Amino acid sequence: MGTADKDILFPRMALIGAGLIGSSLARVVRRQGLAGHIAVCARTQATLDKAMELGFADSVNPNPAEAAKDADLVVLCTPLGVYGSIAEAIAPALKSGAIVSDVGSCKEIMFTDVAPHLPEGVYMVPGHPVAGTEHSGPEAGFAELFEGRWCILTPGPETDADAVERLSELWRRAGMTVEIMDAAHHDQVLALTSHLPHLIAYTIVGTATDLGDELKKEVFKFAAGGFRDFTRIAASDPVMWRDIFLNNKDALLEVLGRFTEDLTALQRAIRRGEEKALEDHFTRTRGIRRGVIEAKQD
Amino acid sequence: MGTADKDILFPRMALIGAGLIGSSLARVVRRQGLAGHIAVCARTQATLDKAMELGFADSVNPNPAEAAKDADLVVLCTPLGVYGSIAEAIAPALKSGAIVSDVGSCKEIMFTDVAPHLPEGVYMVPGHPVAGTEHSGPEAGFAELFEGRWCILTPGPETDADAVERLSELWRRAGMTVEIMDAAHHDQVLALTSHLPHLIAYTIVGTATDLGDELKKEVFKFAAGGFRDFTRIAASDPVMWRDIFLNNKDALLEVLGRFTEDLTALQRAIRRGEEKALEDHFTRTRGIRRGVIEAKQD
Repeated sequence: MGTADKDILFPRMALIGAGLIGSSLARVVRRQGLAGHIAVCARTQATLDKAMELGFADSVNPNPAEAAKDADLVVLCTPLGVYGSIAEAIAPALKSGAIVSDVGSCKEIMFTDVAPHLPEGVYMVPGHPVAGTEHSGPEAGFAELFEGRWCILTPGPETDADAVERLSELWRRAGMTVEIMDAAHHDQVLALTSHLPHLIAYTIVGTATDLGDELKKEVFKFAAGGFRDFTRIAASDPVMWRDIFLNNKDALLEVLGRFTEDLTALQRAIRRGEEKALEDHFTRTRGIRRGVIEAKQD
Repeated sequence: MGTADKDILFPRMALIGAGLIGSSLARVVRRQGLAGHIAVCARTQATLDKAMELGFADSVNPNPAEAAKDADLVVLCTPLGVYGSIAEAIAPALKSGAIVSDVGSCKEIMFTDVAPHLPEGVYMVPGHPVAGTEHSGPEAGFAELFEGRWCILTPGPETDADAVERLSELWRRAGMTVEIMDAAHHDQVLALTSHLPHLIAYTIVGTATDLGDELKKEVFKFAAGGFRDFTRIAASDPVMWRDIFLNNKDALLEVLGRFTEDLTALQRAIRRGEEKALEDHFTRTRGIRRGVIEAKQD
Protein backbone atom coordinates (compact mmCIF):
# COMPACT_ATOMS: atom_id res chain seq x y z
CA MET A 1 0.00 0.00 0.00
CA GLY A 2 3.04 2.28 -0.24
CA THR A 3 3.26 2.44 3.54
CA ALA A 4 6.72 2.49 5.08
CA ASP A 5 7.22 -0.25 7.68
CA LYS A 6 8.12 2.40 10.23
CA ASP A 7 4.45 3.49 10.29
CA ILE A 8 3.37 0.08 11.55
CA LEU A 9 2.48 0.29 15.23
CA PHE A 10 1.10 -3.24 15.54
CA PRO A 11 2.27 -6.09 13.27
CA ARG A 12 -1.05 -7.86 13.82
CA MET A 13 -4.27 -6.26 15.01
CA ALA A 14 -7.56 -8.00 15.71
CA LEU A 15 -10.93 -6.27 15.75
CA ILE A 16 -13.73 -8.18 17.47
CA GLY A 17 -16.80 -6.63 15.88
CA ALA A 18 -16.96 -4.59 12.68
CA GLY A 19 -19.81 -2.13 13.09
CA LEU A 20 -19.64 1.65 12.79
CA ILE A 21 -16.66 2.10 15.14
CA GLY A 22 -14.80 -1.15 14.43
CA SER A 23 -14.97 -0.75 10.67
CA SER A 24 -14.02 2.93 10.90
CA LEU A 25 -10.98 2.00 12.99
CA ALA A 26 -10.05 -0.70 10.46
CA ARG A 27 -10.37 1.80 7.64
CA VAL A 28 -8.14 4.43 9.22
CA VAL A 29 -5.58 1.81 10.34
CA ARG A 30 -5.46 0.55 6.75
CA ARG A 31 -5.24 4.04 5.25
CA GLN A 32 -2.44 5.06 7.60
CA GLY A 33 -0.70 1.70 7.44
CA LEU A 34 -0.72 1.34 11.22
CA ALA A 35 -1.00 -2.47 11.29
CA GLY A 36 0.73 -5.17 9.27
CA HIS A 37 -2.36 -7.37 9.30
CA ILE A 38 -5.96 -6.58 10.24
CA ALA A 39 -7.92 -9.61 11.42
CA VAL A 40 -11.65 -9.05 11.74
CA CYS A 41 -14.06 -11.18 13.74
CA ALA A 42 -17.82 -10.79 13.41
CA ARG A 43 -20.80 -12.86 14.43
CA THR A 44 -22.47 -13.15 11.03
CA GLN A 45 -21.10 -14.38 7.73
CA ALA A 46 -22.72 -11.38 6.04
CA THR A 47 -20.56 -8.97 8.08
CA LEU A 48 -17.42 -11.04 7.44
CA ASP A 49 -18.14 -11.04 3.70
CA LYS A 50 -18.77 -7.30 3.81
CA ALA A 51 -15.48 -6.69 5.62
CA MET A 52 -13.56 -8.48 2.85
CA GLU A 53 -15.61 -6.85 0.10
CA LEU A 54 -15.08 -3.35 1.52
CA GLY A 55 -11.39 -4.15 1.82
CA PHE A 56 -10.72 -3.14 5.43
CA ALA A 57 -9.82 -6.66 6.63
CA ASP A 58 -6.83 -8.82 5.69
CA SER A 59 -8.50 -11.87 7.18
CA VAL A 60 -11.89 -12.63 8.68
CA ASN A 61 -12.95 -15.25 11.19
CA PRO A 62 -16.22 -15.92 13.03
CA ASN A 63 -14.23 -17.25 16.00
CA PRO A 64 -12.86 -14.49 18.28
CA ALA A 65 -10.08 -16.72 19.66
CA GLU A 66 -8.77 -17.46 16.18
CA ALA A 67 -8.90 -13.80 15.18
CA ALA A 68 -7.09 -12.78 18.39
CA LYS A 69 -4.39 -15.46 18.08
CA ASP A 70 -0.91 -13.90 17.77
CA ALA A 71 -2.38 -10.39 17.71
CA ASP A 72 -0.33 -7.55 19.19
CA LEU A 73 -3.51 -5.55 19.73
CA VAL A 74 -7.04 -6.84 20.21
CA VAL A 75 -9.84 -4.26 20.21
CA LEU A 76 -13.36 -5.18 21.34
CA CYS A 77 -15.83 -3.32 19.11
CA THR A 78 -19.02 -5.15 20.14
CA PRO A 79 -21.95 -4.20 22.34
CA LEU A 80 -20.92 -4.22 26.03
CA GLY A 81 -23.17 -7.16 26.87
CA VAL A 82 -20.85 -9.70 25.24
CA TYR A 83 -17.54 -8.36 26.61
CA GLY A 84 -17.33 -11.03 29.30
CA SER A 85 -17.92 -14.00 27.03
CA ILE A 86 -15.53 -12.67 24.40
CA ALA A 87 -12.81 -12.09 27.00
CA GLU A 88 -13.28 -15.65 28.21
CA ALA A 89 -13.10 -16.97 24.64
CA ILE A 90 -9.99 -15.07 23.54
CA ALA A 91 -8.01 -15.39 26.80
CA PRO A 92 -6.30 -18.73 25.96
CA ALA A 93 -5.28 -17.45 22.51
CA LEU A 94 -3.70 -14.17 23.65
CA LYS A 95 0.03 -13.94 23.30
CA SER A 96 2.25 -12.47 26.02
CA GLY A 97 2.69 -8.74 25.58
CA ALA A 98 -0.57 -8.30 23.68
CA ILE A 99 -2.68 -5.24 24.41
CA VAL A 100 -6.44 -5.73 24.91
CA SER A 101 -8.56 -2.62 24.44
CA ASP A 102 -12.09 -1.66 23.42
CA VAL A 103 -14.13 1.25 22.07
CA GLY A 104 -17.15 1.10 24.39
CA SER A 105 -19.00 3.98 26.01
CA CYS A 106 -18.67 2.50 29.55
CA LYS A 107 -15.24 1.83 30.99
CA GLU A 108 -15.62 0.21 34.42
CA ILE A 109 -16.99 -2.87 32.67
CA MET A 110 -13.49 -3.61 31.33
CA PHE A 111 -12.30 -4.06 34.92
CA THR A 112 -15.31 -6.10 36.01
CA ASP A 113 -16.09 -8.25 32.96
CA VAL A 114 -12.86 -8.45 30.96
CA ALA A 115 -9.82 -8.13 33.29
CA PRO A 116 -10.62 -11.23 35.39
CA HIS A 117 -10.30 -13.45 32.29
CA LEU A 118 -7.02 -12.07 30.95
CA PRO A 119 -3.80 -14.04 31.49
CA GLU A 120 -0.60 -12.66 33.05
CA GLY A 121 1.56 -10.70 30.63
CA VAL A 122 -1.37 -9.19 28.71
CA TYR A 123 -1.94 -5.44 29.03
CA MET A 124 -5.50 -4.15 29.34
CA VAL A 125 -5.99 -0.53 28.24
CA PRO A 126 -9.70 0.39 28.02
CA GLY A 127 -10.48 3.01 25.40
CA HIS A 128 -13.37 5.19 24.27
CA PRO A 129 -13.11 7.17 21.05
CA VAL A 130 -15.83 9.80 21.63
CA ALA A 131 -17.16 9.81 18.07
CA GLY A 132 -20.06 8.27 16.24
CA THR A 133 -23.09 8.74 14.07
CA GLU A 134 -26.62 7.36 14.35
CA HIS A 135 -25.82 4.80 11.65
CA SER A 136 -24.49 1.32 12.32
CA GLY A 137 -22.96 -1.68 10.60
CA PRO A 138 -19.77 -2.22 8.57
CA GLU A 139 -20.95 -0.05 5.68
CA ALA A 140 -21.60 2.94 7.97
CA GLY A 141 -17.93 3.32 8.92
CA PHE A 142 -15.48 5.83 7.44
CA ALA A 143 -11.82 6.59 8.11
CA GLU A 144 -12.43 10.25 9.02
CA LEU A 145 -14.87 9.48 11.87
CA PHE A 146 -12.31 10.13 14.60
CA GLU A 147 -10.72 13.32 13.28
CA GLY A 148 -10.58 16.19 15.75
CA ARG A 149 -12.37 14.23 18.50
CA TRP A 150 -11.31 13.03 21.94
CA CYS A 151 -10.24 9.50 22.75
CA ILE A 152 -10.40 8.68 26.46
CA LEU A 153 -8.17 5.87 27.76
CA THR A 154 -8.77 4.51 31.26
CA PRO A 155 -5.84 2.22 32.15
CA GLY A 156 -5.55 0.96 35.72
CA PRO A 157 -2.90 2.59 37.92
CA GLU A 158 -0.53 -0.37 37.44
CA THR A 159 -0.82 -0.62 33.68
CA ASP A 160 2.42 -0.63 31.69
CA ALA A 161 3.07 2.95 30.51
CA ASP A 162 4.56 1.75 27.23
CA ALA A 163 1.38 -0.15 26.34
CA VAL A 164 -0.71 2.95 27.09
CA GLU A 165 1.59 5.05 24.91
CA ARG A 166 1.43 2.61 21.99
CA LEU A 167 -2.35 2.61 22.06
CA SER A 168 -2.41 6.41 22.45
CA GLU A 169 -0.28 6.72 19.35
CA LEU A 170 -2.76 4.61 17.37
CA TRP A 171 -5.62 6.95 18.20
CA ARG A 172 -3.51 10.05 17.62
CA ARG A 173 -2.66 8.74 14.14
CA ALA A 174 -6.42 8.29 13.63
CA GLY A 175 -6.77 12.03 14.26
CA MET A 176 -7.85 12.03 17.91
CA THR A 177 -6.59 13.83 21.00
CA VAL A 178 -5.97 11.33 23.77
CA GLU A 179 -7.01 11.94 27.38
CA ILE A 180 -6.19 9.62 30.27
CA MET A 181 -8.94 9.32 32.89
CA ASP A 182 -10.10 7.14 35.74
CA ALA A 183 -12.70 4.62 34.51
CA ALA A 184 -15.32 5.46 37.15
CA HIS A 185 -14.92 9.16 36.47
CA HIS A 186 -15.28 8.54 32.73
CA ASP A 187 -18.55 6.73 33.33
CA GLN A 188 -19.85 9.59 35.44
CA VAL A 189 -19.00 12.26 32.83
CA LEU A 190 -20.39 10.23 29.93
CA ALA A 191 -23.59 9.50 31.86
CA LEU A 192 -24.39 13.18 31.52
CA THR A 193 -22.85 14.10 28.16
CA SER A 194 -23.99 11.07 26.25
CA HIS A 195 -26.04 8.42 28.05
CA LEU A 196 -28.72 10.71 29.53
CA PRO A 197 -29.20 12.67 26.24
CA HIS A 198 -29.66 9.37 24.42
CA LEU A 199 -32.11 8.04 27.01
CA ILE A 200 -34.14 11.24 26.80
CA ALA A 201 -34.15 11.24 23.02
CA TYR A 202 -35.30 7.62 23.02
CA THR A 203 -38.03 8.54 25.49
CA ILE A 204 -39.45 11.54 23.68
CA VAL A 205 -39.45 9.80 20.32
CA GLY A 206 -41.23 6.90 22.00
CA THR A 207 -43.78 9.32 23.44
CA ALA A 208 -44.50 10.46 19.89
CA THR A 209 -45.04 6.92 18.63
CA ASP A 210 -47.79 6.41 21.19
CA LEU A 211 -49.87 9.24 19.78
CA GLY A 212 -52.81 8.58 17.50
CA ASP A 213 -51.91 7.93 13.85
CA GLU A 214 -53.11 11.29 12.55
CA LEU A 215 -51.17 13.28 15.14
CA LYS A 216 -48.12 11.06 14.66
CA LYS A 217 -48.11 11.80 10.94
CA GLU A 218 -48.06 15.51 11.68
CA VAL A 219 -45.30 15.11 14.24
CA PHE A 220 -43.12 13.65 11.48
CA LYS A 221 -44.15 16.31 9.04
CA PHE A 222 -43.32 19.26 11.28
CA ALA A 223 -40.33 17.66 12.97
CA ALA A 224 -38.03 20.51 12.05
CA GLY A 225 -38.52 22.36 15.32
CA GLY A 226 -36.23 20.44 17.69
CA PHE A 227 -37.78 16.99 17.51
CA ARG A 228 -35.71 16.23 14.41
CA ASP A 229 -32.45 16.32 16.41
CA PHE A 230 -33.97 13.90 18.91
CA THR A 231 -35.07 11.45 16.21
CA ARG A 232 -31.53 11.38 14.89
CA ILE A 233 -30.11 10.54 18.32
CA ALA A 234 -32.87 7.99 18.93
CA ALA A 235 -32.00 6.18 15.68
CA SER A 236 -28.77 4.86 17.20
CA ASP A 237 -28.16 1.14 17.55
CA PRO A 238 -30.72 -0.38 20.00
CA VAL A 239 -28.58 -3.24 21.37
CA MET A 240 -25.52 -1.06 21.83
CA TRP A 241 -27.53 1.48 23.81
CA ARG A 242 -29.45 -1.10 25.81
CA ASP A 243 -26.08 -2.40 27.02
CA ILE A 244 -24.71 1.07 27.76
CA PHE A 245 -27.72 1.97 29.90
CA LEU A 246 -27.59 -1.32 31.80
CA ASN A 247 -23.83 -1.18 32.32
CA ASN A 248 -23.72 2.40 33.51
CA LYS A 249 -26.87 2.04 35.55
CA ASP A 250 -25.69 3.73 38.76
CA ALA A 251 -24.18 6.84 37.18
CA LEU A 252 -27.08 7.13 34.74
CA LEU A 253 -29.78 6.85 37.42
CA GLU A 254 -27.91 9.43 39.46
CA VAL A 255 -27.89 12.09 36.70
CA LEU A 256 -31.40 11.08 35.70
CA GLY A 257 -32.48 11.90 39.25
CA ARG A 258 -30.93 15.35 39.00
CA PHE A 259 -32.51 15.90 35.59
CA THR A 260 -35.97 14.90 36.81
CA GLU A 261 -35.72 17.29 39.77
CA ASP A 262 -34.75 20.12 37.44
CA LEU A 263 -37.51 19.29 34.95
CA THR A 264 -40.08 19.19 37.74
CA ALA A 265 -38.93 22.62 38.94
CA LEU A 266 -39.28 24.09 35.43
CA GLN A 267 -42.65 22.38 35.03
CA ARG A 268 -43.83 24.08 38.21
CA ALA A 269 -42.47 27.45 37.06
CA ILE A 270 -44.44 27.07 33.82
CA ARG A 271 -47.60 25.99 35.62
CA ARG A 272 -47.32 28.96 37.99
CA GLY A 273 -46.37 31.41 35.22
CA GLU A 274 -43.08 32.41 36.86
CA GLU A 275 -41.67 34.52 34.03
CA LYS A 276 -38.48 35.62 35.71
CA ALA A 277 -37.42 32.17 36.91
CA LEU A 278 -37.85 30.78 33.40
CA GLU A 279 -36.01 33.59 31.66
CA ASP A 280 -33.13 33.37 34.15
CA HIS A 281 -32.80 29.63 33.61
CA PHE A 282 -32.81 29.91 29.81
CA THR A 283 -30.31 32.77 29.87
CA ARG A 284 -27.97 30.63 31.97
CA THR A 285 -28.14 27.67 29.59
CA ARG A 286 -27.38 29.92 26.65
CA GLY A 287 -24.01 30.67 28.25
CA ILE A 288 -23.23 26.95 28.35
CA ARG A 289 -23.32 26.78 24.59
CA ARG A 290 -20.45 29.25 24.56
CA GLY A 291 -18.52 26.89 26.83
CA VAL A 292 -19.01 24.02 24.41
CA ILE A 293 -17.99 26.14 21.43
CA GLU A 294 -14.90 27.37 23.28
CA ALA A 295 -14.00 23.77 24.12
CA LYS A 296 -14.09 23.24 20.32
CA GLN A 297 -16.64 20.43 20.48
CA ASP A 298 -18.78 22.00 17.78
CA MET B 1 -33.98 46.77 -7.65
CA GLY B 2 -34.86 45.45 -11.11
CA THR B 3 -38.03 43.87 -9.78
CA ALA B 4 -41.08 43.95 -12.00
CA ASP B 5 -44.10 45.53 -10.30
CA LYS B 6 -46.08 42.36 -10.96
CA ASP B 7 -43.99 40.57 -8.31
CA ILE B 8 -45.20 42.95 -5.62
CA LEU B 9 -47.72 41.19 -3.38
CA PHE B 10 -48.07 43.99 -0.83
CA PRO B 11 -47.41 47.65 -1.69
CA ARG B 12 -46.52 48.35 1.94
CA MET B 13 -45.47 45.76 4.51
CA ALA B 14 -44.72 46.42 8.19
CA LEU B 15 -42.63 44.12 10.35
CA ILE B 16 -43.01 44.61 14.08
CA GLY B 17 -39.76 43.15 15.39
CA ALA B 18 -36.58 42.46 13.43
CA GLY B 19 -34.91 39.48 15.05
CA LEU B 20 -33.93 36.20 13.40
CA ILE B 21 -37.32 35.56 11.76
CA GLY B 22 -38.39 39.16 11.12
CA SER B 23 -35.11 40.14 9.51
CA SER B 24 -35.02 36.92 7.46
CA LEU B 25 -38.52 37.64 6.18
CA ALA B 26 -37.51 41.22 5.33
CA ARG B 27 -34.46 39.94 3.47
CA VAL B 28 -36.36 37.46 1.33
CA VAL B 29 -39.17 39.94 0.65
CA ARG B 30 -36.55 42.43 -0.51
CA ARG B 31 -34.66 39.87 -2.60
CA GLN B 32 -37.85 38.66 -4.32
CA GLY B 33 -39.34 42.16 -4.58
CA LEU B 34 -42.53 41.06 -2.82
CA ALA B 35 -43.27 44.43 -1.18
CA GLY B 36 -43.09 47.99 -2.46
CA HIS B 37 -41.99 49.32 0.92
CA ILE B 38 -40.73 47.49 4.00
CA ALA B 39 -41.35 49.38 7.26
CA VAL B 40 -39.53 47.96 10.26
CA CYS B 41 -40.40 48.64 13.88
CA ALA B 42 -38.10 47.63 16.72
CA ARG B 43 -37.86 48.47 20.39
CA THR B 44 -34.24 49.65 20.44
CA GLN B 45 -32.51 52.28 18.34
CA ALA B 46 -29.61 49.84 17.88
CA THR B 47 -31.88 47.38 16.05
CA LEU B 48 -33.44 50.14 13.95
CA ASP B 49 -29.97 51.38 12.97
CA LYS B 50 -28.91 47.83 12.17
CA ALA B 51 -31.98 47.30 9.98
CA MET B 52 -31.07 50.36 7.88
CA GLU B 53 -27.39 49.47 7.81
CA LEU B 54 -28.09 45.89 6.68
CA GLY B 55 -30.43 47.27 4.05
CA PHE B 56 -33.53 45.16 4.65
CA ALA B 57 -35.75 48.10 5.70
CA ASP B 58 -37.00 51.02 3.62
CA SER B 59 -38.03 52.88 6.74
CA VAL B 60 -37.67 52.29 10.48
CA ASN B 61 -39.76 53.50 13.39
CA PRO B 62 -39.74 52.74 17.12
CA ASN B 63 -43.51 53.27 17.21
CA PRO B 64 -45.50 50.20 16.03
CA ALA B 65 -48.58 52.27 15.13
CA GLU B 66 -46.55 54.52 12.85
CA ALA B 67 -44.85 51.55 11.19
CA ALA B 68 -48.22 49.83 10.70
CA LYS B 69 -49.94 52.93 9.31
CA ASP B 70 -51.18 52.39 5.73
CA ALA B 71 -49.59 48.92 5.63
CA ASP B 72 -51.25 46.24 3.51
CA LEU B 73 -49.62 43.55 5.62
CA VAL B 74 -48.45 43.79 9.23
CA VAL B 75 -46.43 40.87 10.61
CA LEU B 76 -45.75 40.53 14.33
CA CYS B 77 -42.21 39.17 14.75
CA THR B 78 -41.79 39.77 18.49
CA PRO B 79 -41.88 37.47 21.51
CA LEU B 80 -45.46 36.34 22.22
CA GLY B 81 -45.62 38.20 25.53
CA VAL B 82 -46.05 41.61 23.84
CA TYR B 83 -48.61 40.58 21.18
CA GLY B 84 -51.53 42.04 23.15
CA SER B 85 -49.98 45.44 23.76
CA ILE B 86 -48.77 45.71 20.17
CA ALA B 87 -52.20 44.81 18.81
CA GLU B 88 -53.72 47.48 21.02
CA ALA B 89 -51.18 50.03 19.84
CA ILE B 90 -51.48 49.39 16.10
CA ALA B 91 -55.25 48.89 15.97
CA PRO B 92 -56.20 52.58 15.41
CA ALA B 93 -53.60 52.91 12.64
CA LEU B 94 -54.64 49.86 10.62
CA LYS B 95 -56.25 50.56 7.29
CA SER B 96 -59.30 48.69 6.08
CA GLY B 97 -58.36 45.55 4.16
CA ALA B 98 -55.00 45.19 5.90
CA ILE B 99 -53.83 41.69 6.82
CA VAL B 100 -52.40 41.16 10.31
CA SER B 101 -50.23 38.09 10.75
CA ASP B 102 -47.35 36.84 12.86
CA VAL B 103 -44.54 34.28 12.92
CA GLY B 104 -44.91 32.92 16.47
CA SER B 105 -44.67 29.32 17.62
CA CYS B 106 -48.09 29.43 19.39
CA LYS B 107 -51.20 30.23 17.42
CA GLU B 108 -54.20 30.34 19.77
CA ILE B 109 -52.70 33.49 21.31
CA MET B 110 -53.57 35.38 18.10
CA PHE B 111 -57.25 34.72 18.80
CA THR B 112 -57.05 35.52 22.52
CA ASP B 113 -54.58 38.43 22.64
CA VAL B 114 -54.65 40.04 19.18
CA ALA B 115 -58.07 39.52 17.55
CA PRO B 116 -60.09 41.38 20.23
CA HIS B 117 -58.17 44.60 19.48
CA LEU B 118 -58.48 44.54 15.70
CA PRO B 119 -61.02 46.81 13.98
CA GLU B 120 -63.65 45.64 11.50
CA GLY B 121 -62.36 45.21 7.96
CA VAL B 122 -58.92 43.96 9.00
CA TYR B 123 -58.08 40.32 8.23
CA MET B 124 -56.21 38.31 10.84
CA VAL B 125 -54.26 35.32 9.45
CA PRO B 126 -51.95 33.80 12.10
CA GLY B 127 -48.80 32.22 10.67
CA HIS B 128 -45.91 30.07 11.79
CA PRO B 129 -42.95 29.52 9.47
CA VAL B 130 -41.43 26.36 11.00
CA ALA B 131 -37.81 27.38 10.60
CA GLY B 132 -35.10 28.85 12.76
CA THR B 133 -31.63 28.58 14.19
CA GLU B 134 -30.33 28.98 17.73
CA HIS B 135 -29.07 32.47 16.87
CA SER B 136 -31.07 35.64 17.34
CA GLY B 137 -31.13 39.32 16.44
CA PRO B 138 -31.22 41.24 13.13
CA GLU B 139 -27.75 40.10 12.10
CA ALA B 140 -28.64 36.40 12.51
CA GLY B 141 -31.25 36.49 9.73
CA PHE B 142 -30.77 35.29 6.16
CA ALA B 143 -33.05 35.14 3.13
CA GLU B 144 -32.68 31.35 2.68
CA LEU B 145 -33.93 30.46 6.19
CA PHE B 146 -37.39 29.41 4.99
CA GLU B 147 -36.44 27.36 1.95
CA GLY B 148 -37.92 23.88 1.82
CA ARG B 149 -39.69 24.25 5.18
CA TRP B 150 -43.35 24.27 6.20
CA CYS B 151 -45.34 27.39 6.96
CA ILE B 152 -48.49 26.72 8.97
CA LEU B 153 -51.33 29.25 8.71
CA THR B 154 -54.22 29.07 11.18
CA PRO B 155 -56.97 31.41 9.98
CA GLY B 156 -60.33 31.31 11.71
CA PRO B 157 -63.19 29.58 9.85
CA GLU B 158 -64.66 32.92 8.78
CA THR B 159 -61.46 34.48 7.50
CA ASP B 160 -61.49 35.91 3.99
CA ALA B 161 -60.10 33.25 1.63
CA ASP B 162 -58.42 35.85 -0.56
CA ALA B 163 -56.45 37.23 2.40
CA VAL B 164 -55.30 33.72 3.31
CA GLU B 165 -54.24 33.11 -0.29
CA ARG B 166 -52.28 36.37 -0.50
CA LEU B 167 -50.36 35.54 2.67
CA SER B 168 -49.83 31.95 1.48
CA GLU B 169 -48.30 33.27 -1.73
CA LEU B 170 -45.84 35.40 0.28
CA TRP B 171 -44.54 32.36 2.15
CA ARG B 172 -44.48 30.22 -0.98
CA ARG B 173 -42.33 32.87 -2.68
CA ALA B 174 -40.04 32.68 0.37
CA GLY B 175 -39.56 28.99 -0.44
CA MET B 176 -42.02 27.41 2.01
CA THR B 177 -44.85 24.89 1.62
CA VAL B 178 -48.00 26.27 3.19
CA GLU B 179 -50.31 24.15 5.35
CA ILE B 180 -53.63 25.36 6.75
CA MET B 181 -54.42 24.09 10.24
CA ASP B 182 -56.66 24.75 13.21
CA ALA B 183 -54.85 26.94 15.77
CA ALA B 184 -55.48 24.66 18.76
CA HIS B 185 -54.32 21.65 16.77
CA HIS B 186 -51.17 23.51 15.72
CA ASP B 187 -50.37 24.25 19.35
CA GLN B 188 -50.82 20.58 20.27
CA VAL B 189 -48.53 19.32 17.48
CA LEU B 190 -45.85 21.92 18.14
CA ALA B 191 -45.93 21.21 21.87
CA LEU B 192 -44.45 17.83 21.03
CA THR B 193 -42.28 18.56 17.99
CA SER B 194 -40.75 21.76 19.26
CA HIS B 195 -41.74 23.06 22.67
CA LEU B 196 -41.10 19.88 24.68
CA PRO B 197 -37.70 19.22 23.00
CA HIS B 198 -36.65 22.77 23.80
CA LEU B 199 -37.83 22.51 27.41
CA ILE B 200 -35.91 19.26 27.83
CA ALA B 201 -32.77 20.65 26.23
CA TYR B 202 -32.95 23.69 28.51
CA THR B 203 -33.38 21.35 31.48
CA ILE B 204 -30.49 18.99 30.78
CA VAL B 205 -28.09 21.81 29.99
CA GLY B 206 -29.18 23.44 33.24
CA THR B 207 -28.53 20.17 35.07
CA ALA B 208 -24.97 20.28 33.74
CA THR B 209 -24.39 23.83 34.94
CA ASP B 210 -25.20 22.77 38.48
CA LEU B 211 -22.35 20.28 38.58
CA GLY B 212 -19.08 21.10 40.26
CA ASP B 213 -16.66 23.21 38.21
CA GLU B 214 -14.26 20.38 37.42
CA LEU B 215 -16.98 18.05 36.18
CA LYS B 216 -18.63 20.88 34.27
CA LYS B 217 -15.41 21.56 32.40
CA GLU B 218 -15.27 17.94 31.33
CA VAL B 219 -18.89 17.96 30.28
CA PHE B 220 -18.07 20.74 27.81
CA LYS B 221 -14.97 18.97 26.66
CA PHE B 222 -16.63 15.67 25.88
CA ALA B 223 -19.92 17.11 24.66
CA ALA B 224 -19.64 15.34 21.30
CA GLY B 225 -21.68 12.34 22.39
CA GLY B 226 -25.21 13.78 22.30
CA PHE B 227 -25.03 16.67 24.78
CA ARG B 228 -23.74 18.98 22.03
CA ASP B 229 -27.07 18.84 20.18
CA PHE B 230 -28.86 19.78 23.39
CA THR B 231 -26.59 22.77 24.05
CA ARG B 232 -27.34 24.07 20.57
CA ILE B 233 -31.10 23.88 21.16
CA ALA B 234 -30.72 25.39 24.65
CA ALA B 235 -28.88 28.40 23.22
CA SER B 236 -32.11 29.72 21.66
CA ASP B 237 -33.52 33.09 22.67
CA PRO B 238 -34.55 33.02 26.38
CA VAL B 239 -37.40 35.55 26.23
CA MET B 240 -38.91 34.05 23.09
CA TRP B 241 -38.95 30.60 24.66
CA ARG B 242 -40.18 31.79 28.05
CA ASP B 243 -43.20 33.24 26.24
CA ILE B 244 -43.77 30.11 24.16
CA PHE B 245 -43.80 27.87 27.24
CA LEU B 246 -46.13 30.19 29.13
CA ASN B 247 -48.49 30.67 26.18
CA ASN B 248 -48.76 27.00 25.28
CA LYS B 249 -48.89 25.90 28.90
CA ASP B 250 -51.80 23.45 28.67
CA ALA B 251 -50.62 21.53 25.61
CA LEU B 252 -47.03 21.56 26.87
CA LEU B 253 -47.91 20.27 30.34
CA GLU B 254 -50.02 17.56 28.72
CA VAL B 255 -47.18 16.17 26.55
CA LEU B 256 -44.73 16.71 29.40
CA GLY B 257 -46.94 14.45 31.51
CA ARG B 258 -46.80 11.72 28.86
CA PHE B 259 -43.04 12.15 28.51
CA THR B 260 -42.49 11.88 32.26
CA GLU B 261 -44.53 8.70 32.44
CA ASP B 262 -42.51 7.18 29.61
CA LEU B 263 -39.21 8.26 31.13
CA THR B 264 -40.19 6.78 34.48
CA ALA B 265 -41.05 3.48 32.78
CA LEU B 266 -37.66 3.37 31.04
CA GLN B 267 -35.94 4.32 34.30
CA ARG B 268 -37.60 1.37 35.99
CA ALA B 269 -36.63 -0.96 33.13
CA ILE B 270 -33.01 0.14 33.53
CA ARG B 271 -33.09 -0.23 37.30
CA ARG B 272 -34.56 -3.73 36.99
CA GLY B 273 -32.24 -4.71 34.12
CA GLU B 274 -35.10 -5.51 31.73
CA GLU B 275 -33.04 -6.09 28.61
CA LYS B 276 -35.84 -7.02 26.25
CA ALA B 277 -38.13 -4.11 27.17
CA LEU B 278 -35.29 -1.66 26.55
CA GLU B 279 -34.21 -3.16 23.25
CA ASP B 280 -37.81 -3.26 22.00
CA HIS B 281 -38.33 0.39 22.88
CA PHE B 282 -35.12 1.54 21.17
CA THR B 283 -35.87 -0.54 18.08
CA ARG B 284 -39.25 1.13 17.82
CA THR B 285 -37.82 4.66 18.04
CA ARG B 286 -35.31 3.85 15.32
CA GLY B 287 -38.24 3.30 12.96
CA ILE B 288 -39.52 6.79 13.74
CA ARG B 289 -36.38 8.31 12.27
CA ARG B 290 -37.31 6.68 8.99
CA GLY B 291 -40.70 8.37 9.21
CA VAL B 292 -39.05 11.77 9.63
CA ILE B 293 -36.66 11.18 6.74
CA GLU B 294 -39.52 10.03 4.51
CA ALA B 295 -41.45 13.17 5.45
CA LYS B 296 -38.38 15.01 4.10
CA GLN B 297 -37.78 17.00 7.28
CA ASP B 298 -34.09 16.14 7.37
